Amino acid sequence: MIIIMKPNATPKQVEDVIQVIQSLELTPHLYQGIESTVIGAVGDNHNIPTDRFEILDGVESVKRISQPFKLASRQLHPEDSIFPLDGFQVGGNEIIVIAGPCSVESRSQIIETAQAVREAGANALRGGVFKPRTSPYSFQGLGEEGLEYLAEARQLTGMPVVSEVMSQTQLDVMVRYVDVLQIGARNMQNFNLLRAIGETRKTALLKRGLSATIEELLMSAEYILAGGNRQVMLCERGIRTFETSTRNTTDINAIPVLKSLTHLPVILDPSHSTGDSEYVAAVARAAVAAGADGLIVEVHPDPARALSDGKQSLRPEKFAEMVRQVRAIAEVMGRKITPVTKPASVGW
Amino acid sequence: MIIIMKPNATPKQVEDVIQVIQSLELTPHLYQGIESTVIGAVGDNHNIPTDRFEILDGVESVKRISQPFKLASRQLHPEDSIFPLDGFQVGGNEIIVIAGPCSVESRSQIIETAQAVREAGANALRGGVFKPRTSPYSFQGLGEEGLEYLAEARQLTGMPVVSEVMSQTQLDVMVRYVDVLQIGARNMQNFNLLRAIGETRKTALLKRGLSATIEELLMSAEYILAGGNRQVMLCERGIRTFETSTRNTTDINAIPVLKSLTHLPVILDPSHSTGDSEYVAAVARAAVAAGADGLIVEVHPDPARALSDGKQSLRPEKFAEMVRQVRAIAEVMGRKITPVTKPASVGW
Amino acid sequence: MIIIMKPNATPKQVEDVIQVIQSLELTPHLYQGIESTVIGAVGDNHNIPTDRFEILDGVESVKRISQPFKLASRQLHPEDSIFPLDGFQVGGNEIIVIAGPCSVESRSQIIETAQAVREAGANALRGGVFKPRTSPYSFQGLGEEGLEYLAEARQLTGMPVVSEVMSQTQLDVMVRYVDVLQIGARNMQNFNLLRAIGETRKTALLKRGLSATIEELLMSAEYILAGGNRQVMLCERGIRTFETSTRNTTDINAIPVLKSLTHLPVILDPSHSTGDSEYVAAVARAAVAAGADGLIVEVHPDPARALSDGKQSLRPEKFAEMVRQVRAIAEVMGRKITPVTKPASVGW
Amino acid sequence: MIIIMKPNATPKQVEDVIQVIQSLELTPHLYQGIESTVIGAVGDNHNIPTDRFEILDGVESVKRISQPFKLASRQLHPEDSIFPLDGFQVGGNEIIVIAGPCSVESRSQIIETAQAVREAGANALRGGVFKPRTSPYSFQGLGEEGLEYLAEARQLTGMPVVSEVMSQTQLDVMVRYVDVLQIGARNMQNFNLLRAIGETRKTALLKRGLSATIEELLMSAEYILAGGNRQVMLCERGIRTFETSTRNTTDINAIPVLKSLTHLPVILDPSHSTGDSEYVAAVARAAVAAGADGLIVEVHPDPARALSDGKQSLRPEKFAEMVRQVRAIAEVMGRKITPVTKPASVGW
Repeated sequence: MIIIMKPNATPKQVEDVIQVIQSLELTPHLYQGIESTVIGAVGDNHNIPTDRFEILDGVESVKRISQPFKLASRQLHPEDSIFPLDGFQVGGNEIIVIAGPCSVESRSQIIETAQAVREAGANALRGGVFKPRTSPYSFQGLGEEGLEYLAEARQLTGMPVVSEVMSQTQLDVMVRYVDVLQIGARNMQNFNLLRAIGETRKTALLKRGLSATIEELLMSAEYILAGGNRQVMLCERGIRTFETSTRNTTDINAIPVLKSLTHLPVILDPSHSTGDSEYVAAVARAAVAAGADGLIVEVHPDPARALSDGKQSLRPEKFAEMVRQVRAIAEVMGRKITPVTKPASVGW
Repeated sequence: MIIIMKPNATPKQVEDVIQVIQSLELTPHLYQGIESTVIGAVGDNHNIPTDRFEILDGVESVKRISQPFKLASRQLHPEDSIFPLDGFQVGGNEIIVIAGPCSVESRSQIIETAQAVREAGANALRGGVFKPRTSPYSFQGLGEEGLEYLAEARQLTGMPVVSEVMSQTQLDVMVRYVDVLQIGARNMQNFNLLRAIGETRKTALLKRGLSATIEELLMSAEYILAGGNRQVMLCERGIRTFETSTRNTTDINAIPVLKSLTHLPVILDPSHSTGDSEYVAAVARAAVAAGADGLIVEVHPDPARALSDGKQSLRPEKFAEMVRQVRAIAEVMGRKITPVTKPASVGW
Repeated sequence: MIIIMKPNATPKQVEDVIQVIQSLELTPHLYQGIESTVIGAVGDNHNIPTDRFEILDGVESVKRISQPFKLASRQLHPEDSIFPLDGFQVGGNEIIVIAGPCSVESRSQIIETAQAVREAGANALRGGVFKPRTSPYSFQGLGEEGLEYLAEARQLTGMPVVSEVMSQTQLDVMVRYVDVLQIGARNMQNFNLLRAIGETRKTALLKRGLSATIEELLMSAEYILAGGNRQVMLCERGIRTFETSTRNTTDINAIPVLKSLTHLPVILDPSHSTGDSEYVAAVARAAVAAGADGLIVEVHPDPARALSDGKQSLRPEKFAEMVRQVRAIAEVMGRKITPVTKPASVGW
Repeated sequence: MIIIMKPNATPKQVEDVIQVIQSLELTPHLYQGIESTVIGAVGDNHNIPTDRFEILDGVESVKRISQPFKLASRQLHPEDSIFPLDGFQVGGNEIIVIAGPCSVESRSQIIETAQAVREAGANALRGGVFKPRTSPYSFQGLGEEGLEYLAEARQLTGMPVVSEVMSQTQLDVMVRYVDVLQIGARNMQNFNLLRAIGETRKTALLKRGLSATIEELLMSAEYILAGGNRQVMLCERGIRTFETSTRNTTDINAIPVLKSLTHLPVILDPSHSTGDSEYVAAVARAAVAAGADGLIVEVHPDPARALSDGKQSLRPEKFAEMVRQVRAIAEVMGRKITPVTKPASVGW
């Protein structure tokens, strides 16, 4: 249920609405928009008549949200969600370009890559330290050692750091080191992990599962939002279909569909969605043309020797070429890629 | 097997190669490129040693094509195929924009739509007269009456006409009326129809089947090419997946994959690939950004009353807006949408 | 709309109902069941009130069919459709076992195989003479020559013959030679072909398309039924999914779902649905346990040398073992596989 | 790498082989078969020549396992894995029938259901207490309270208890209460959870993910096996496809494919794989006919009031009918469903 306040509603009137919500054992979620204040009342509210709120002072109207996702819905929050990330904005007219290797493999590898991708135009750094690998016998990531290297790369380049968290037990250490907690496709419905991330106030990057519907992706975002963490980016990374000429099928439709259904920023991962470095630039351009708010791209200084995902990783010079093309498309779309200009940050 | 001739090979030398091919019971296919002449020798040639050709005068080199599609392969024909269509070029740096209703419903409807889409920037007209409908009780198209109306719309607007042929028995009448023979998704592996179209010299627009792989699409194109008809456009129109929020899933990966594997022009149908007019413009932009050579889009003056596909049809003013956006993306890609400027043609 | 007649309705009363149906420009379809007579009134009837029929003498009740398929629906025809096929029954408590090679390759191959599969327990013979092949360069079938061989095999073994028709242009010759017209998966929505088969009175075996929904399969059956041909068998032959360890995914759910939705017999093709002779027997047993009315299985005397589908073809001795297992399951299900006992037939 | 010992190899010779394996930093896995002793040497062994083992006393031969899964492979362990479960055997000629509600809802509901399914022929009890729900606002299970009720039901009926564990943090409490740890489809690639279960010695029931390939399922089993836990059952529970007439598509092919690739027992969940109680019995029969080692079925005394999965839950009397049918199929397959005959156990 959404309670839309009058433009001139007082803080006291807003507070009164929140108290009524709490007295009904619902959870209030306050959204201060530019034009109006909206309060979500989430929980089992189907027996509560809307006039329980309509009679309160300062209330303009009350609506039920028809979709199963509530806090993620554009019905609740018609404006785009925009949130700051270490020097620029996610959402709005800025395009986030996250780049880096699949896995952090060594100190020199991540620092070299970080500098190269910053040079090429990226404004955030990715690198996995806990790796979800199909085989128990494959390289599983450097763990906390890798986080130290990511921290150093962050310090040197000024770029915020994105890394995947696979389990609640890794969350404490991850929160200390990274700027964005990535939830991988295989964990999109690891509900315990989602709840735990909802309890933090770190930005989350939630990847769509290999065969998750768009609605299920939004329901998983709802788990994080319901905990009070509003900084959630959604990521299309390709779905599993019968087609075998690419690793996955990029569901480009998901971009406009998500932009229609939700206020959350939506990015695309052309590395996983194609699985082939030859096709990454074309799909990256398509994503921005379709309205995506950003990209996450695998870049490796020497793809042939990468410990994981070498086939789909771009060399730095190919990535720079991709950024040039994407920037031109972004301009046509009235958007820009903000470069990292601040001096290297001193810490968190 | 491909025989690449030396740049200074004489017509007599080319002719000699062709005679050897025929003497081996293979079929020769001659490609005169800008830089070189290439001759395909198609058929069961795996027992024929390459030096059977290498020793001939004027031959530079001989290669086997490793892919199952031969005439469609870029290995045979490294340059893009470009062919004329009534005033402009398909392929190359021109973007074809085919627009019109799903079905021709009446004389006034098709003429009104044709004028509106030409005005909005389309350079070819679509309209179905033989409709493949899931139900035997649904509207099945106007048949030859519809072709008469299409002919009139063509005369008035100067736009070439694209229409679907469902069966060999319709081919004679279709060839008399239309400029481009469309093969629908459900007929992509109707091999008798493909062969029959290969015997004509009409441009073909071959749509990918609902669950056809990219390789199968190219094998179906091969049926047409093997008959000697080289004017084949391929069309991604969405594939069937588990996702139900859109009618189909646009396989945007297919654009760069096809451009890599084949020399044939590749277009996209965002109306069928999304099934929702709200998402058509976003996916149309994405297609051109990904490198597509054109679009085919459903436009109807009154979608709510359309006899078929109303939900995914754009109103003319929405279509005009889409063309403006697509043109801006095309320019970034170094391409253009050639308008129809010639006076209405006098006939075929 | 279904008009259910009273048990004691007279032929005259039935005739009167049919005349009213025709006067309303609908098509009547008469079903004489064991317990009651039911008349379908098919066409655009949503504006016709049910009391237009309820007031007629002999009418017990009138119902609208809610499903998009009408003649195929169990709502119209609650009892199973059972129809004779050259000595036994399709549907009811008999299991049809159709076996033979993918393609008729030579006179000796088809006759040898026919005798072997009859010996092993099959009661119908399959063999393709017009082959839908992905590649234009693959073996395309023997054509009419193959039909001559099939006719001879039929004569010698007394088994009815099933063969695929790919195109309307092949229909005349096929009707002369075969007992059952198979429509392949790639032609399931070749609506012109379906209509043409609806005009014949030959039994049809309609295979599900690679990515056709169960509802679409029934709509395609409706095209045949609407022409007046009521002898339609449906065939699950595996659908296309992401799984690559088998050629297709056998949708075993389709068996009980179809048996619930339609009165038509339902068979399964474990050769195509698995693509691997190692798994055929297990899936054949599963089909009969799930309630299938029959099987169609590829058998070849020398699979390694088969011109098509060798990997999925059973050797005759493996097929015999499969029939023994299937027969045991059939008995548990209260069903039987009627052997071919009649002397070789003298012709058509 | 597999080291196969001679039939008369001494324990000392086996021990010597294990020491060499450890000295090479590989992990030994000992399998004492009826006919021979086999030792797996798992880890990065591709640089180790097989003659490093062939020269040791008592060694008959050494083979490399070509598949990516090693401990799960039938190449390593050609005989079926059979393991005891509280009074009967999983694998071998016994069919396990696990039944019970989707969720434990109350003490009386689970005890009533447990008694009803035991009466009907089930030999193990299922019931979820930690529920993976798509929506954060849906019923999430009773947690430890539910485990108490399961324990009481176990005591009263003598049936072992199966329940899902969603997270490492729930593992300690689950291990105290349940006999079989179920890993749900959404957690099939929660590698941290799999590893943790590999450290226990509780029987695991690993469900296939919604879009997991058969190979990925086996790789996830490998995570558990690599920890030393050898009691792993695999469960086909339907995959996600384009078909919408059922909740999922039962991949019946997976039964014979898995039985061919692995020695682990394979069961099927017809409740989730169809999503509709009308189709459960047909698919349960098909599973056993295809060679499955067991079933897991949702049963609820009042499906219309179930807090989850009511549509796919059988009433006890329908379940009893299903068991009768399945038992008849099992007998044809040379197998049996061992009833629970022991007195109620006194505890763990």
